[in-house]
Amino acid sequence: MQFTANEICQLINGTLEGKPNSVVSALAKIEDAQAGDLSFLANPKYEPFLYTTKASVVIVNDTLVLDKAITATLIRVADAYSAFSVLLDKYNTLKLNKTGIEEPSFIHPSAKIGTEVYIGAFAYIGVDAVIGNSTKIYPHTYIGDNTTVGNNCTLFSGVKIYHDCVIGNQVIIHANSVVGSDGFGFAPQKDGSYTKISQIGNVIIENDVEIGANTCIDRATMGSTIIKKGVKLDNLIQVAHNVEIGNNTVIASLSGISGSTKIGENCVIGGQVGIVGHISIAKGTQIQAKSGINRTIVEEGKKWGGMFVTPLTHHLKSLAITNRLPELDKRIFEIEKTINKLKPQSND
Amino acid sequence: MQFTANEICQLINGTLEGKPNSVVSALAKIEDAQAGDLSFLANPKYEPFLYTTKASVVIVNDTLVLDKAITATLIRVADAYSAFSVLLDKYNTLKLNKTGIEEPSFIHPSAKIGTEVYIGAFAYIGVDAVIGNSTKIYPHTYIGDNTTVGNNCTLFSGVKIYHDCVIGNQVIIHANSVVGSDGFGFAPQKDGSYTKISQIGNVIIENDVEIGANTCIDRATMGSTIIKKGVKLDNLIQVAHNVEIGNNTVIASLSGISGSTKIGENCVIGGQVGIVGHISIAKGTQIQAKSGINRTIVEEGKKWGGMFVTPLTHHLKSLAITNRLPELDKRIFEIEKTINKLKPQSND
Amino acid sequence: MQFTANEICQLINGTLEGKPNSVVSALAKIEDAQAGDLSFLANPKYEPFLYTTKASVVIVNDTLVLDKAITATLIRVADAYSAFSVLLDKYNTLKLNKTGIEEPSFIHPSAKIGTEVYIGAFAYIGVDAVIGNSTKIYPHTYIGDNTTVGNNCTLFSGVKIYHDCVIGNQVIIHANSVVGSDGFGFAPQKDGSYTKISQIGNVIIENDVEIGANTCIDRATMGSTIIKKGVKLDNLIQVAHNVEIGNNTVIASLSGISGSTKIGENCVIGGQVGIVGHISIAKGTQIQAKSGINRTIVEEGKKWGGMFVTPLTHHLKSLAITNRLPELDKRIFEIEKTINKLKPQSND
Repeated sequence: MQFTANEICQLINGTLEGKPNSVVSALAKIEDAQAGDLSFLANPKYEPFLYTTKASVVIVNDTLVLDKAITATLIRVADAYSAFSVLLDKYNTLKLNKTGIEEPSFIHPSAKIGTEVYIGAFAYIGVDAVIGNSTKIYPHTYIGDNTTVGNNCTLFSGVKIYHDCVIGNQVIIHANSVVGSDGFGFAPQKDGSYTKISQIGNVIIENDVEIGANTCIDRATMGSTIIKKGVKLDNLIQVAHNVEIGNNTVIASLSGISGSTKIGENCVIGGQVGIVGHISIAKGTQIQAKSGINRTIVEEGKKWGGMFVTPLTHHLKSLAITNRLPELDKRIFEIEKTINKLKPQSND
Repeated sequence: MQFTANEICQLINGTLEGKPNSVVSALAKIEDAQAGDLSFLANPKYEPFLYTTKASVVIVNDTLVLDKAITATLIRVADAYSAFSVLLDKYNTLKLNKTGIEEPSFIHPSAKIGTEVYIGAFAYIGVDAVIGNSTKIYPHTYIGDNTTVGNNCTLFSGVKIYHDCVIGNQVIIHANSVVGSDGFGFAPQKDGSYTKISQIGNVIIENDVEIGANTCIDRATMGSTIIKKGVKLDNLIQVAHNVEIGNNTVIASLSGISGSTKIGENCVIGGQVGIVGHISIAKGTQIQAKSGINRTIVEEGKKWGGMFVTPLTHHLKSLAITNRLPELDKRIFEIEKTINKLKPQSND
Repeated sequence: MQFTANEICQLINGTLEGKPNSVVSALAKIEDAQAGDLSFLANPKYEPFLYTTKASVVIVNDTLVLDKAITATLIRVADAYSAFSVLLDKYNTLKLNKTGIEEPSFIHPSAKIGTEVYIGAFAYIGVDAVIGNSTKIYPHTYIGDNTTVGNNCTLFSGVKIYHDCVIGNQVIIHANSVVGSDGFGFAPQKDGSYTKISQIGNVIIENDVEIGANTCIDRATMGSTIIKKGVKLDNLIQVAHNVEIGNNTVIASLSGISGSTKIGENCVIGGQVGIVGHISIAKGTQIQAKSGINRTIVEEGKKWGGMFVTPLTHHLKSLAITNRLPELDKRIFEIEKTINKLKPQSND
């Protein structure tokens, strides 16, 4: 794909300085860009690169004042970063524009398939499944019986969605993630063995959710595990049965949420966090990476860390002192020695 | 699927109170149930819902005494929870009753396929592989050469079992789990690079094991990685080469067991636990979530936590005091000030 | 596969003691070996097994002096462990020697396929993709558009490589790992929702890299996520967008590296480690399992642990004292009591 500086300028409603016919065919960071690349400058820290970059075209803020001559063609806009983001988006939309049904794929005759879909080779669409309009189902993806996928979704290669699940619109799920696997429920028996508790619920994923690669969301025992509108989950996350995650909550990689826990909206949860089951987390809560959350959080909008839901600043202070424990240990020992010397002199 | 209250009643050997012809078509929690749902009441905490539920039929304990009139038809049994579990199970057995071989699938001519199997489209069965009777192999599952899968197993979509592995009977493996990948073994070379140590062993999974989604069990360097009878593994677990996990041990999500470690039977291991290699864990051991186990545990049936295999109650006490370290730090400082004042007065 | 002692002896350039026609068909540990097995003795700790093993042939060090008569045929070499490793390797090379293209597979007409490749059934090779010579693509593997895979690679079943990625030579990727999924990048909006930042970069994996099962390597926002020559990644690892991992660095299972972090060469990183984004780790760094690394490490070749990049020995000392906090807490309390008694007597 090739564009002229002028075409880009019109696309993002900017003002051009330089050569309108300068041609670009790729997007790159200002410090890495080569001839033929389009780049941007938003962070003033990177301004020196503007005078050395090999980029053919650079998008900059309206307010930028040039110190000296430059070789790149400039496009001035109100917000260079946002304008560039829009271009990244258009670039990917053009690039990932597959449509049609590749063969061999397996689409059960009872399945309902929307218009302008992409269904890759070796994709599997089960009995009574529904695939919405403009949705892309990549190769090796599995849609179980009676599962519904909305419009404008992208399910990358190897995604597995079990039966009876409901996926909203504009949902993106990355490769090899699993939705609807059985919750981890077993009844202990007298002989030490376990009997499986059948998991007959489902998973509901609302609109505008994005889920990373190799993440697992278990189906509910009964009822639904629910991932609400706008939630963003990273790679390799565990979401257990009957969990609910509120609107626009973001969770980083390798974290796990145990069964029946309810997480409020607009939370931010770091990587490798563990959250026990059957609790609730207030909206706007932020949890530091690697924390272990073992009780309900009622206060909204606070930051927490550590193993006992400690206010983050206090937790960091405690952690820092943990590192000084060898010193404190010695000081306590010295104090005891001194006191033992003091004691007989004043008490005897 | 529709059943009358009377049919359900006969299935679980109960006593009916109300309308024998009341029809149900779904199972639901008593607080969520709608008309046409079958529910249960076991926990007395939920008893108030019995008088407000919209469920058409509710299974209750024989001993239940009604406070006031109800609209639902009741089925009385000795143990309402167990009876309901049996129904969940029957529901899923009826629901997940696929049989037959879907096309296109790949079954090597040398493979032996049992009776009443389900082999989904795009499943791959390798050279000399064996699939037992009544086993279900979902779409996109890979069974490597010379691997044996027993009877009544369910391997959900995208499970990958490498060559030469042995899977017992009644084994359930959830989507995208991997069995038999190479152990992580490399010999360091003088130039800082590593040479791969070929992993020629296998994985043995005994009867009645259930494995969650996206879990990994590496093959042994030589010999076998062994998952014994009745083990239950959650999602996203790492089991390294030559590990052995004893009968009926349960491990929660995101935990990792390093190479050659032997875990006894009837252990319960929390989420995000890490266990070093080449140690053994006594039977009946319970390990708190997020612990790091760095040495052999010899005593049976104890609870442990933290990074140094500390008895759980002691560990929790230490953790709690960690949170008070800023206060202790100040108190030590104050003590030192006081002592410094005391010292000259009594010693000079 | 059957070999005589004599054939093995010539293969590894050894000296034979015993029956040159002794036949072996499998490799086993000396303590487990049965008749017909080939074994080795390198670690003197295992020497007693030499006199009881049922192995037909045992490879030993040149320097070994026998205490008493043995039944096994011996092959003496300079380094028994290395010689045995060579045999393990040859065994696996013979065993995993698939070639040819199985049907049905999907190879886009524009893709370039090398010589002597294996492409398993249900593998998917996208538009303009390149597969090098002698490379093995197992069933259900997905190679996105415009992605290049080098020579002598093995991509096991279910590996997913998104578009535009570059994989070097002699790369091994285990089942269900994902390369090139979108980095986790979202711009927060005023209403609390997030807008996706399109990820248009790629992943570059250099020669001689091995990646475990169910591991995720995200593509760069722009530019490349780079896994350099000789890196070894275990199962279930998260590598975020724009990360770089230096030559011959080894990372254990369930660890996560956040965005834009650069890890030097020859590092050794334990399991369940978390590393924050936008930092760099000096070459030769060793990080203890379960650590959380929150700042750049400049000094080369050191060992670190804990949550604040603490020198490992100091960290272990602090951890040990953490376990004694209940005792220290009491001692501080006793000190305060004693001082309170002392104070009035000397100050009043």
